[in-house]
Amino acid sequence: MPITGDQTLLKQINRMAIVRRVRQQSGLSRADIAKETGLTKSTVSLLAQELIDEGWLVEHAIQITGALGRRPTPLAIDGGRLAMVGAELGVDRIHVVGLSLSGEIVFKTEQDLQGSGPTEVLGQLARLLIDGVAQVRASGRSVFGVGVGLPGAVDEDAGVLKVAPNLGWRNVDVARPLRAAFDAAGLDALPICMQNEADVAALGEYEFGSAPVPDPLVYLSLGIGVGAGIVVNDRLFVGAAGFAGEVGHSILQIAGARCSCGREGCAEAYIGLRAIARQSASPGDPPRDLDALAAGVAQGELLAVRAAQQAGHYLGVLMQNLWTAFDPGRFVLGGPTCELGAPLLDAAKETIDAYALAAGLPAPEVRVSRYGRRAVAAGAAAMVLHKLLRPV
Amino acid sequence: MPITGDQTLLKQINRMAIVRRVRQQSGLSRADIAKETGLTKSTVSLLAQELIDEGWLVEHAIQITGALGRRPTPLAIDGGRLAMVGAELGVDRIHVVGLSLSGEIVFKTEQDLQGSGPTEVLGQLARLLIDGVAQVRASGRSVFGVGVGLPGAVDEDAGVLKVAPNLGWRNVDVARPLRAAFDAAGLDALPICMQNEADVAALGEYEFGSAPVPDPLVYLSLGIGVGAGIVVNDRLFVGAAGFAGEVGHSILQIAGARCSCGREGCAEAYIGLRAIARQSASPGDPPRDLDALAAGVAQGELLAVRAAQQAGHYLGVLMQNLWTAFDPGRFVLGGPTCELGAPLLDAAKETIDAYALAAGLPAPEVRVSRYGRRAVAAGAAAMVLHKLLRPV
Repeated sequence: MPITGDQTLLKQINRMAIVRRVRQQSGLSRADIAKETGLTKSTVSLLAQELIDEGWLVEHAIQITGALGRRPTPLAIDGGRLAMVGAELGVDRIHVVGLSLSGEIVFKTEQDLQGSGPTEVLGQLARLLIDGVAQVRASGRSVFGVGVGLPGAVDEDAGVLKVAPNLGWRNVDVARPLRAAFDAAGLDALPICMQNEADVAALGEYEFGSAPVPDPLVYLSLGIGVGAGIVVNDRLFVGAAGFAGEVGHSILQIAGARCSCGREGCAEAYIGLRAIARQSASPGDPPRDLDALAAGVAQGELLAVRAAQQAGHYLGVLMQNLWTAFDPGRFVLGGPTCELGAPLLDAAKETIDAYALAAGLPAPEVRVSRYGRRAVAAGAAAMVLHKLLRPV
Repeated sequence: MPITGDQTLLKQINRMAIVRRVRQQSGLSRADIAKETGLTKSTVSLLAQELIDEGWLVEHAIQITGALGRRPTPLAIDGGRLAMVGAELGVDRIHVVGLSLSGEIVFKTEQDLQGSGPTEVLGQLARLLIDGVAQVRASGRSVFGVGVGLPGAVDEDAGVLKVAPNLGWRNVDVARPLRAAFDAAGLDALPICMQNEADVAALGEYEFGSAPVPDPLVYLSLGIGVGAGIVVNDRLFVGAAGFAGEVGHSILQIAGARCSCGREGCAEAYIGLRAIARQSASPGDPPRDLDALAAGVAQGELLAVRAAQQAGHYLGVLMQNLWTAFDPGRFVLGGPTCELGAPLLDAAKETIDAYALAAGLPAPEVRVSRYGRRAVAAGAAAMVLHKLLRPV
């Protein structure tokens, strides 16, 4: 990108550079920031004051030291005045959260889908989001943006859900009805963004996971579908046609089990919730839903535990393959399947650890999502911040 | 990055923005470039004149049209006055090429390694590079940088080859002796850069492959080792610890064949040249080298053809997995194994095509490296340009 004379953009780049620096290291002074960014002290002072006035930054109490003279005032992120609102449009449920600038969930609600067509479901989503914004505001915070995580491939610029197999939707314009409902509610100044569910969850972990958050970061979304959200070079990575991270359809077993996608041997055919449910069913019994399956594992029921362990083993192989591809500094595991707990998660960790040991390498870091069942909704909120912090 | 007052950097960003724009679309006028980049016409004129003076751009003859008035002068990349020099330090051979700004090989030489220790080998490499620079200059071109592709993991900033299993080297400082030799030869102004062989070959295809070059681009280096060079978001992607693209050690067969890395079932244990040679040997016979193997395949010898086809099938599975991970717009296949030709390459293409068909998706584009046996040396030269075009 050439450097043009766009002063508004230049200013926003510099403002967000200051916010990002303070997010990395709380307590920096204006002089520290000037030194590290190359901006002049007067520019930093001017912009920092704006950011304080708007609710981004807060001045900490001046540290009293033995030395003479005025101490520089430490700056920190203000977790108390601004918020983003995020939603997960799931296959059977909507989650909405309000998230503070420091990543705390300050509001949450959830509701089963009422209906199945785009008109009803998107109407319900809009109502829940608008109500969420109102409630976060009522608690005294300004809301500066709204994000949505969707269960399928998303054309982010167009705001279109291209294909969502488990909803049975194709090419549904999500942005337009949401925008219309927000405008009608007087929220026309509020930006709305959206992306695939694994992608936004990855951004939630990237923006608010345990520090220091490494890059690349691979978030594995484990449920009926299996997919990855991938952050590379400080940005979400979606590939040439938006299919990057569709790792549920990488091959774990040549000419193996038939997958719902039509291929054979895909990861999803071994790690997907339906595959685990089938594996854990006694002969003649129907597969169970997640809650029943999780209860079976928790009670140490042999078939359920073995099915979880086997899926965990395949998950470890998938992680080994993604390790060689992306060399992530961290894997984060999220999604409903994680509720099967230790038998699955330990088997995955043992498998990738064994591969690392065989090759004489330290194993990569593996964590479970910070936000649990709200990983997608919180990630959608985090996406708003993520984009704002990166004006170009 | 905040925008600072560094005028030298700003100028270089703008100069390279002009070069990149003209590379994308030859024949643009100064006014076109001003309009598209947001730079003022006078800035574009000033910088374009500099770039013409230095050998980057050339003015094409003014098109004569029927309309009155002076036609804007079309600008193009000047392929005739500048060059980069690149080298591959291979396991048994060094290749050196001179590459023009339009990607033509304008000089080439190769030599077997004389010795095996770092001192002798790096001395030989330095002599060949310095001679290459002299020869390219003697043919009337200015050389603005030198790149080196190395057979192992590279710490690019330190200029250190961290580990090169097939050379038996560990933590060898490559930059220092090269720099010393260049300085002693009066070439102290010439920058030298280096990176892993698959990575530089990927950059060669990214900068000079058939247009339009898509992003991401995955280059697969096929030889005794199997690895990938990956370009993502217009940059080389190396991962958290520099191991991204080590896809020869992704698992194609759980608990499968033992790999040289200590793991079981790695791609390299099925697609690596040694595995193909073993597969193609008659019982009791020793494995053949590449030339003998390629001759056997070319002559339609059954065992050799079958071994090449089987490796090609596994290669197709590896590409399917990398497709789901990276969603590349293009795969490029390179390295010595490609000399086995159609039986291997067709089997790979058929395999990934079959996976695409089963899922109802268009198959990704697969090409063979433009530069053949010189893919790494040409890529190392291309890396010099790639870095210069991206000042930040």
